[in-house]
Amino acid sequence: MNTVVLPGDPKSEVQTPALCLNLDSFEANLQRTASAVRAAGKQWRPNSKSHQSLDIAKRLIHAGAIGLTCGCVAEAQIFATQSIRDLLITQLPVGNRRIRQLAELCKIADPIATCDHYVQAEALSQECQRQGVRCRALVEINVGLERTGARPGRDTIELARGIDRLPGLILSGIMGIEGNRVPGESIEDIDRKMGAASGILAHSRDIFLQNGLCCGIVSGVGTDSFPQGLRSESLTEIQAGSILFRDEPTSKSASRHDASPTLTLLSTVISRPGFERAVLDAGTDWLAAGTATPTIKDWPDARVLRQYAEHLVLELGPCSRELRIGDQVELTIPHLAATVALHRQFLGFRQHQLEAVWPIFTRSFSG
Amino acid sequence: MNTVVLPGDPKSEVQTPALCLNLDSFEANLQRTASAVRAAGKQWRPNSKSHQSLDIAKRLIHAGAIGLTCGCVAEAQIFATQSIRDLLITQLPVGNRRIRQLAELCKIADPIATCDHYVQAEALSQECQRQGVRCRALVEINVGLERTGARPGRDTIELARGIDRLPGLILSGIMGIEGNRVPGESIEDIDRKMGAASGILAHSRDIFLQNGLCCGIVSGVGTDSFPQGLRSESLTEIQAGSILFRDEPTSKSASRHDASPTLTLLSTVISRPGFERAVLDAGTDWLAAGTATPTIKDWPDARVLRQYAEHLVLELGPCSRELRIGDQVELTIPHLAATVALHRQFLGFRQHQLEAVWPIFTRSFSG
Repeated sequence: MNTVVLPGDPKSEVQTPALCLNLDSFEANLQRTASAVRAAGKQWRPNSKSHQSLDIAKRLIHAGAIGLTCGCVAEAQIFATQSIRDLLITQLPVGNRRIRQLAELCKIADPIATCDHYVQAEALSQECQRQGVRCRALVEINVGLERTGARPGRDTIELARGIDRLPGLILSGIMGIEGNRVPGESIEDIDRKMGAASGILAHSRDIFLQNGLCCGIVSGVGTDSFPQGLRSESLTEIQAGSILFRDEPTSKSASRHDASPTLTLLSTVISRPGFERAVLDAGTDWLAAGTATPTIKDWPDARVLRQYAEHLVLELGPCSRELRIGDQVELTIPHLAATVALHRQFLGFRQHQLEAVWPIFTRSFSG
Repeated sequence: MNTVVLPGDPKSEVQTPALCLNLDSFEANLQRTASAVRAAGKQWRPNSKSHQSLDIAKRLIHAGAIGLTCGCVAEAQIFATQSIRDLLITQLPVGNRRIRQLAELCKIADPIATCDHYVQAEALSQECQRQGVRCRALVEINVGLERTGARPGRDTIELARGIDRLPGLILSGIMGIEGNRVPGESIEDIDRKMGAASGILAHSRDIFLQNGLCCGIVSGVGTDSFPQGLRSESLTEIQAGSILFRDEPTSKSASRHDASPTLTLLSTVISRPGFERAVLDAGTDWLAAGTATPTIKDWPDARVLRQYAEHLVLELGPCSRELRIGDQVELTIPHLAATVALHRQFLGFRQHQLEAVWPIFTRSFSG
């Protein structure tokens, strides 16, 4: 009785709201990104947050990604079931259950934990010993985002020395996240932020090496600073992941080599309560707007006037006034990862024909 | 390997972030709300959006709700599997698949469709005839929210006459939603809005009856206008549902008889990067803040400084500076329905002991 879509179906037959992926653009973005990372002599460990999909993860690995960056252990476990072994987990290991899960993951994959305090590393070390496994660990350094991360300099090096001595852990390097572009920030601001982060990471790596500590991995770089990250001397690997999809903030800032978004929300006009007003069956239950507002593809004189959980109210211009109840429109996705988390599947289209249905496992559920 | 929580577990053993329901408060709210509706001589058809849970739906029916209000057909189908038959679907029936699903639902339940245009009713009528079923229908009236809904007066009555003549449909009354309180709006504003909506519904009902049209159902009233709704002369049934949970906007506005929130997000301190700063393992992936900011229970001098997808950064005062890595804190839920949609289950606690695990089916997935 539930909604069924089958490969071969035309877009017009899809029940809306639906998250639609343009497969041609996606594949082009994937090849272009993987080539750019390779040409820069880096490794690519894309953050899986922006897709939360096994199908997409497999395509990334196939295109040359060395592994994935995951927000939490539960997410990494899901990828490990698909034989993706090299999994960097950015969430600091705190809490008995989380640490137990992480140590268990070492039995089927080769995860990397991140720590910014000795108490996290110590607890993880104990659990790894108890389970008879060894887990790689990075020191997370605060490179300017002022969120998590050890202070650069003495705090970092002391923590690294501590981790290096802990049984069950393998000190493997450092990580630092410079943070995404915030509204109003220019590309120059991002450049500066990335420059500072790179400098801190390079300096930290040098101190690691001077102290005889392993620093094989220097990981960082989100999508917004992708071009700058490629040029960074210190980084060995790049986490940028949402670059494949080009949500609106992304296309506007750093990912300058292709601005066409691959994802849209397909929606239906369900009410036409006035001459200049149409109401769509989409809303914040299916489209996380964040700080931006979705725009309407192919109808430039229509704009989103108000957003409700289950409705978007459009103000129509002279052209878009011809929209009728039952017509489909496509909306751009202002906030990619948050929108993906609201959906169960990507519908992959080749032109206007459904070719692939890729389930989304929704990492927000995984704790 | 995944997170398992078992009844009897203490709160301290739960993997965070977790959505926690205080069962004592919830049960008290439920009885109080059901009694208030009964005492006002109305019927209660709570909106299921705020919980999306079969366990909770069954408890609402047990407490006296006549049925449920659902945002979409797919959601109603899920409740129908639990023998909840009287299901009002507020989403206008548009689109072949959606209309097909709705007609199919008539075979196992007794749904009510809402229409604001003849083209919706006509398509539904055709599909009902094709499937050999009859579906109840309400006219949705624009009572001031300026979203969906037919214009009061002649448009409404013409649409009602049209529906009344359509085979396969049973004209059953009217619905009008006055909308939730918006930030900055006073209780007096809500009173005025509800007064206007009630007046329009009463007038429409009178015209229905003068024209010999059935108007057995007059449905409306969200949580914010619950006390006013109880006093409304025209309404036969009340949709308020989130009143059971008391998120912050709700407790502040209309639901004056119990201000204690029942739901919190349990979270863990994962980093303590500075004297006045703690970082929690919660973030907008688990907590939809909307226009309000979560507050921290039991730590009044801690406040949320910045929100990220996977982290909340707290600024700590003199008392809360004692928070350490690994400590649990509970956050209030500023935006109830949007937060529930991000979770897989409610963990129901009696004091500090887990008693119930109630799955959430996440209606945003259901299209």
